[in-house]
Amino acid sequence: MIKRRRTRQISIGRVKIGGSAPISVQSMTKTRTADVASTLAQIRSLEDAGCEIVRIALSDSDDAEAFKKIRKATDMPLVADIHFDYRLALKAVRYGVDGLRINPGNIGSSERVEEVVRAAKDADIPIRIGVNAGSLEKDILKRHGHTPWAMVESAMRRIEIFEGLDFRDIKVSLKASDVMSTVEAYRILSEKADYPLHIGITEAGTAFSGTVKSAAGLGILLSQGIGDTLRVSLTGTPEEEVRVGYAVLKALGIRKKGVNIISCPTCGRVKVDVVSLACEVERRLLHIDTPLDVAVMGCVVNGPGEAVQADVGLASGDGVGLIYRRGEVVKKVKEEDMVDELVAMVEDLVLSGYKKSEII
Amino acid sequence: MIKRRRTRQISIGRVKIGGSAPISVQSMTKTRTADVASTLAQIRSLEDAGCEIVRIALSDSDDAEAFKKIRKATDMPLVADIHFDYRLALKAVRYGVDGLRINPGNIGSSERVEEVVRAAKDADIPIRIGVNAGSLEKDILKRHGHTPWAMVESAMRRIEIFEGLDFRDIKVSLKASDVMSTVEAYRILSEKADYPLHIGITEAGTAFSGTVKSAAGLGILLSQGIGDTLRVSLTGTPEEEVRVGYAVLKALGIRKKGVNIISCPTCGRVKVDVVSLACEVERRLLHIDTPLDVAVMGCVVNGPGEAVQADVGLASGDGVGLIYRRGEVVKKVKEEDMVDELVAMVEDLVLSGYKKSEII
Repeated sequence: MIKRRRTRQISIGRVKIGGSAPISVQSMTKTRTADVASTLAQIRSLEDAGCEIVRIALSDSDDAEAFKKIRKATDMPLVADIHFDYRLALKAVRYGVDGLRINPGNIGSSERVEEVVRAAKDADIPIRIGVNAGSLEKDILKRHGHTPWAMVESAMRRIEIFEGLDFRDIKVSLKASDVMSTVEAYRILSEKADYPLHIGITEAGTAFSGTVKSAAGLGILLSQGIGDTLRVSLTGTPEEEVRVGYAVLKALGIRKKGVNIISCPTCGRVKVDVVSLACEVERRLLHIDTPLDVAVMGCVVNGPGEAVQADVGLASGDGVGLIYRRGEVVKKVKEEDMVDELVAMVEDLVLSGYKKSEII
Repeated sequence: MIKRRRTRQISIGRVKIGGSAPISVQSMTKTRTADVASTLAQIRSLEDAGCEIVRIALSDSDDAEAFKKIRKATDMPLVADIHFDYRLALKAVRYGVDGLRINPGNIGSSERVEEVVRAAKDADIPIRIGVNAGSLEKDILKRHGHTPWAMVESAMRRIEIFEGLDFRDIKVSLKASDVMSTVEAYRILSEKADYPLHIGITEAGTAFSGTVKSAAGLGILLSQGIGDTLRVSLTGTPEEEVRVGYAVLKALGIRKKGVNIISCPTCGRVKVDVVSLACEVERRLLHIDTPLDVAVMGCVVNGPGEAVQADVGLASGDGVGLIYRRGEVVKKVKEEDMVDELVAMVEDLVLSGYKKSEII
């Protein structure tokens, strides 16, 4: 039901972004970059969580030297995040970074930008033009105020400079903490340029409110076919960011990974503890990577209807439940066996080689 | 930036739904309805959480008699949720319910529906036509399969019957556990009818995945101007549902309530513990109902830019922070005083009578 907007394709290391490539999930290390051991440990933990690209902030030459070591120790696609000091970008390129992110609002004169672009071109790596509402150029702010148009103009100005240098290995982001401003900015830009878009809501807040803002904002953009790679920003761990990122893609049916639990909110009709059941089933199926819908339903109203549509489903009534597999009732189970039986049925289905096709 | 679709207006007790009324937040009791004390306690707790309409499932005559007592003990707008047995709907009306929810897929013959409609009309209360993908009429499923069109046809069939009885005091919901099917169904219906829409994603799953699915689905619908009242379904507490509901409306700038924390995701640049800072500030400002943006930022890149735009902001650097109030730096504070000073500044701003205008 989603028609994805057509964009050019670029590559960050082994990961393709734009065109028909799957929408990739990225995050950023939150350790001190100069602390090589901690940063590498976080990169590995992010890899386990399914993160496909990791961004690292380089804020001084200690960070840059640490990056040199980090680069040698991991094949994870790495992006260096640079503000203020263009020389750190040059160093990152020299040390084998897979992509650069610079902020047009603070990277400095066009001579400096030119030097960075030339280095990226020689190394055949892309640059993200990462516009933030919180750090826009003063003259643009004067003309447009804090509006989506200001963000778009900041990006377009930089795109034109890059194109003038015959450099088109670009992706663009336009982030604001306000969801609708962010959405509007990406929508306007997506009509002006066909560069791949890196989407996200910036400064989204704590794990709770950041998850809601990100899911709403990314949901709106993705439903309009906008976005080629995403990063969820949370005041929380980067692994949580990756989990929310995949959950959003899963929610829209764009990428599937692991089990999608369909469970009822429970109500006065429910005679079993669906909350515990669903949480326990979700927890015990975290090891499954195969995309599957698993329904955990507590009553006879919508239970059978949802269970029959899921890959594996449980419709529980008064002390007993029916287990469904691919639309057929296959077992009647007692309340105390529901979780074990449901988990066993899912594992068995996965072992049988059952696969849904991935939608992109 | 959001243009809301024009709908008719109905009332559930004191709460208006549709037209230019604020988009209301509702939930459903999860206690056994027949347990009057627990159900009433949950209604009160929902009221404290900001819930504006409470739905209660009536599944047998014990529930109906319990409802009679519940109705007498609270002035909260109450909706009775009825499946299978139309007589329970008639009882709920007699006992003073403010609205009915029936499911076209299971309420029975048109004679029975007519009787319910006549009772609602005499009592001057609205009926929600609550279509669930999990319980559609068989002939419709045969024709359309499990598609958005099937849900829309189920609703339209019932709307026509109601209109034939000269009853237009209607709201409609079309819920599926699949986000994009739900969105598509509401979009199609919103072009066919101007009845107010009750939106939500059903069987959305546990607190984590249910929050993501609901925020994405409701975000998409609301951004298209669709939706007059909402319910977030979580396999969790109803109070959490209300909190997520408001968080979605807040994220899109549709309704504001309390403090909106803007906080950075932290990265290798950050020299203070922003996660703890932001969570602590969020927690200590839960008592504020006035809508305010409060920025908690950890570095010099986007910190000052976000802090200056917020109502109250903190841009922290290396052991010190600057506190902003309505765009001006008003104080320099040490790390250990940041939370106290920020909280005091917010409380002082609220006491001064400062108010943002509410966007609807």
